[in-house]
Amino acid sequence: MDGRVILRLEQLFGKERVLTNQTDLMTYSYDASFATQLEPKEPEIVVIPQSTEEISACVKLANEYQVPLYPRGAGTAQTGGPVPVMGGIVMDLSRMNRILEIDHKNMQAIIEPGVVQANLNNALKEYGLFFPPDPGSAKMCTIGGMVANNSSGLRAVKYGNTRFYVLGLEVVLPTGDVIVTGGSKSKALKSVSGYDLAHLMVGSEGTLGIITKLRLKVLPLPSRRGIVLCSFSKLEQAGEAVNELFRSGILPSALEIMDQQCTKAANLMRPQLALPENEALLVIEADGSKEEVASQVKRITEVISKFTDYVKFSDEPEECQQLWQARQIVGAATGRLKPGGFRVYGGEDICVPLSRLPETLRKIHEIARSYNIVCAIYGHIGDGNLHTSPVINRRDKEEIENAKKMIEDIHRLAIEMEGTTTAEHGVGIVRAQYMEIEHGTALEVMKAIKRTLDPNNILNPGKMALPV
Amino acid sequence: MDGRVILRLEQLFGKERVLTNQTDLMTYSYDASFATQLEPKEPEIVVIPQSTEEISACVKLANEYQVPLYPRGAGTAQTGGPVPVMGGIVMDLSRMNRILEIDHKNMQAIIEPGVVQANLNNALKEYGLFFPPDPGSAKMCTIGGMVANNSSGLRAVKYGNTRFYVLGLEVVLPTGDVIVTGGSKSKALKSVSGYDLAHLMVGSEGTLGIITKLRLKVLPLPSRRGIVLCSFSKLEQAGEAVNELFRSGILPSALEIMDQQCTKAANLMRPQLALPENEALLVIEADGSKEEVASQVKRITEVISKFTDYVKFSDEPEECQQLWQARQIVGAATGRLKPGGFRVYGGEDICVPLSRLPETLRKIHEIARSYNIVCAIYGHIGDGNLHTSPVINRRDKEEIENAKKMIEDIHRLAIEMEGTTTAEHGVGIVRAQYMEIEHGTALEVMKAIKRTLDPNNILNPGKMALPV
Repeated sequence: MDGRVILRLEQLFGKERVLTNQTDLMTYSYDASFATQLEPKEPEIVVIPQSTEEISACVKLANEYQVPLYPRGAGTAQTGGPVPVMGGIVMDLSRMNRILEIDHKNMQAIIEPGVVQANLNNALKEYGLFFPPDPGSAKMCTIGGMVANNSSGLRAVKYGNTRFYVLGLEVVLPTGDVIVTGGSKSKALKSVSGYDLAHLMVGSEGTLGIITKLRLKVLPLPSRRGIVLCSFSKLEQAGEAVNELFRSGILPSALEIMDQQCTKAANLMRPQLALPENEALLVIEADGSKEEVASQVKRITEVISKFTDYVKFSDEPEECQQLWQARQIVGAATGRLKPGGFRVYGGEDICVPLSRLPETLRKIHEIARSYNIVCAIYGHIGDGNLHTSPVINRRDKEEIENAKKMIEDIHRLAIEMEGTTTAEHGVGIVRAQYMEIEHGTALEVMKAIKRTLDPNNILNPGKMALPV
Repeated sequence: MDGRVILRLEQLFGKERVLTNQTDLMTYSYDASFATQLEPKEPEIVVIPQSTEEISACVKLANEYQVPLYPRGAGTAQTGGPVPVMGGIVMDLSRMNRILEIDHKNMQAIIEPGVVQANLNNALKEYGLFFPPDPGSAKMCTIGGMVANNSSGLRAVKYGNTRFYVLGLEVVLPTGDVIVTGGSKSKALKSVSGYDLAHLMVGSEGTLGIITKLRLKVLPLPSRRGIVLCSFSKLEQAGEAVNELFRSGILPSALEIMDQQCTKAANLMRPQLALPENEALLVIEADGSKEEVASQVKRITEVISKFTDYVKFSDEPEECQQLWQARQIVGAATGRLKPGGFRVYGGEDICVPLSRLPETLRKIHEIARSYNIVCAIYGHIGDGNLHTSPVINRRDKEEIENAKKMIEDIHRLAIEMEGTTTAEHGVGIVRAQYMEIEHGTALEVMKAIKRTLDPNNILNPGKMALPV
């Protein structure tokens, strides 16, 4: 990198917020994706901004010297999204983490991009409010990253994904110019004035702008939750049960599936759970007031009981916690399925139509077997979103190669099943090769928009099959 | 218009689907907006397509001869959105009105753009499903128009606006090329693969593409509704009651306000309603199962009773219908407030932060008084969205001029109150002059996107302050 760039960055941020030492740079060379853990890529320099002005100046500098710039939140991405594949600058936004305003009377929160999801929800709680999108990484991930990837998580089946809660964004464009979407001075909860540029930014993975401030819609916090845990000997029964729930007018606040390998893993980690190791375990959550939850839990168990005898339920907070455990520990537990096993994040976010879930689950297991890889599958069955978890030995080179092939097969399967390679994690580098297959000519429009907003291809280049 | 264009259009559509006679053209010269009723503008020709291929060919022809092309649904817009302000072709999409598939197992419907909202919901009902966005014009408006304007309506407070239900769109771009957004062959309920171009199209008012097919998410239909009707002597009490409802964890499925003029109008139209003519009447709806609705209605009345003694409620279908009447007739009733009165659609869609609603309502009445215009206000108080209804004599030129000034003042008031000029109706021509005030530099980005996708400025030109 041009020495003048480093000098100018040090002038801009002060030396203490510019990192150039090897150990520091290494920590920015990967995210949670298998791909970048196998092949990390270090930035040449890391900057840690504290204001929109600094970010804007830095982006202008990057344009002046034609240096790639990679925005990064908490690094919990599973796509290589924040990894500087073309070198250059990584911009670590995690210190822009102030909750600027909880405007409870207007049902909104104004925050900086580095605020961690759980921290916002802790702050909202005392007002009886919450920010519904709830990814598995809620205790670590930044909300800027959630918006950049349009995350969703456990409660999307009822509450929708992050997109639904974005009222407005302050964004530093790839040219360094600053815009405010959704009305430059607005605090309205609805607006259809002009193109809603916020919704172009949502899910654009930092390729069209750096989000520097967020105006988010929040909702009344339900006072209570109830859980129904049920087990099915056949996957198809679980699928039918979900269909019947919807047809009965029931919209649970979470609707999760764990396959046989997952229940096995959960039992290994916590034997006292004593989960029946059938083809499918569903964990269903209802929320609302005490009476509403009691009523919903009753209706859910009535529907479910037509399909299985194994139904446990509760609307008492402590018992719910017990029932929820199986789902809570599954991510960590899958590693136990194999001695020295390591759960790999790849092919981990496919989504298929609900009607094809059982078929898809069976085919994923066939694929896994064909490569002799241990694999557990859980996910948001209400949305058709499956989190496949291959468990491998990271020192076994052959197994690594097999895992890569398996991941490719799973992605292609998802498309074949009229689904998508990614429901909530994003494209980054790990799914760029499917962009044309998934989008056809629409990819050209995406490229045209990228070129229009980022003529020098400065922001997060080398991602999403966008022009290089 | 170049005679060759007419000839080519007749070849493309057949003479029976090309309209050129004056009487026909006149019906396409205005929509429901006051502005276009005062100053209609006829197209030179109207075409009525029946397929994506025809639309694509027509758009290519429009580019070849540089003729403006204006897509139109049912013409229920209140913005001048579908009016051909620069002449040229109007494309009437109302005959592309087939429901192509109700894929109830996958919780989605695939339809053509001309399907009327109520017709889709009738078809969904037998599957126990519904399409939640519910504008006042549901029995007439097309869903293509709803998406183009990102409509919302009565139930947005709980279910969000039209945007939330758009999974994918087939779109004829301004160049005539056809793309499919949200995955070209996908039936997934969630996807974050690539820029979500559907969400750029939503609310772009036909300036970036013509929607030819829609893949919509649908939800389980709640089996029951309950209504709480309550009256407040002071607007501020109504505002506080709404705030307290949210704080108590209650999210009603509708939360409507009618001001004193509205209750007066409703009483004039249907005296047996005998509504108390206080500053604010709230109509609150809850939905769910029988038990859930009963419980919600009880909780809502408990909260409301802290602020007023006038609370009526029911969760019995027939009684609910009675209580809902006040809200149902208000649009039509306002005309009764003045002999020979005509309700004008202008300044009819502002949205302000919830905390500023009482102040805004009072100021609108001050403005109306200053112009000596009768004015009623109702709207979606849960979203801060007010539908102001000036009632004037359409033969009184002075009153027309005063109404225009009043509309301008209301729009400026909305911006001053940190709100927006339009929450759900759109910009079109009637709010174009506020685009720069509302969006500042972001307007330049909108223009750049318009230029990129529509280099010849063919689609719906002269709207939304976009380049001409």
